[in-house]
Amino acid sequence: MALNPQYEDIGKGFVQQYYAIFDDPANRANVVNFYSATDSFMTFEGHQIQGAPKILEKVQSLSFQKISRVITTVDSQPTFDGGVLINVLGRVQTDEDQPHAYIQTFVLKPVGISFFVQHDIFRLALHDV
Amino acid sequence: MALNPQYEDIGKGFVQQYYAIFDDPANRANVVNFYSATDSFMTFEGHQIQGAPKILEKVQSLSFQKISRVITTVDSQPTFDGGVLINVLGRVQTDEDQPHAYIQTFVLKPVGISFFVQHDIFRLALHDV
Repeated sequence: MALNPQYEDIGKGFVQQYYAIFDDPANRANVVNFYSATDSFMTFEGHQIQGAPKILEKVQSLSFQKISRVITTVDSQPTFDGGVLINVLGRVQTDEDQPHAYIQTFVLKPVGISFFVQHDIFRLALHDV
Repeated sequence: MALNPQYEDIGKGFVQQYYAIFDDPANRANVVNFYSATDSFMTFEGHQIQGAPKILEKVQSLSFQKISRVITTVDSQPTFDGGVLINVLGRVQTDEDQPHAYIQTFVLKPVGISFFVQHDIFRLALHDV
């Protein structure tokens, strides 16, 4: 499959769509629909899980409700299977916590005329100083 | 091709090997050997280039000499073509500049018994505050 020339728009559009769902407490569990039952990896703060059922469990275990998010940069590259690699740098504030910088990487895998999230790595940018 | 069960070690090993070369001013240009002549993408602070010759040009255009680097976290996932997705969070200080947090994502693509860097995204973690 060829490189997808729309990778830039796909990356930005996905990020917007994904966080609109994730950041809405009433809707958050629906992010599971972005993942494959078996072929999706998520690494959340170093903890790695595979497949939509476990990813749903993880998402539902998050204790915060309110999220304020500011996206700083979205860098996308086309992958050689027609997918998109997306790197997000942003800041996130949950409930009354301090805002923290974070990074999140997604790999979107094409399936038919759509995509699923094959890879998802999330890290708060906390450094030992 | 199956998932590579060594992805964790491959990711950590690659990061160590790559930065040992990149951070040595006398040796830095040799990082070009990690990239493919045509099938490697690099996005450096939002500027996207493709292929080893252009990546070499970019690396050689970097004006700093000395680099001090601290790796905070390395998160790796196996990709479904036998490669490895690697997410690095760290801090870097060039010459007499201030230390800055940065993020770098690599996708290693298997070729024979080795790998090349198919995707490379670098961003300093600078946020508008």
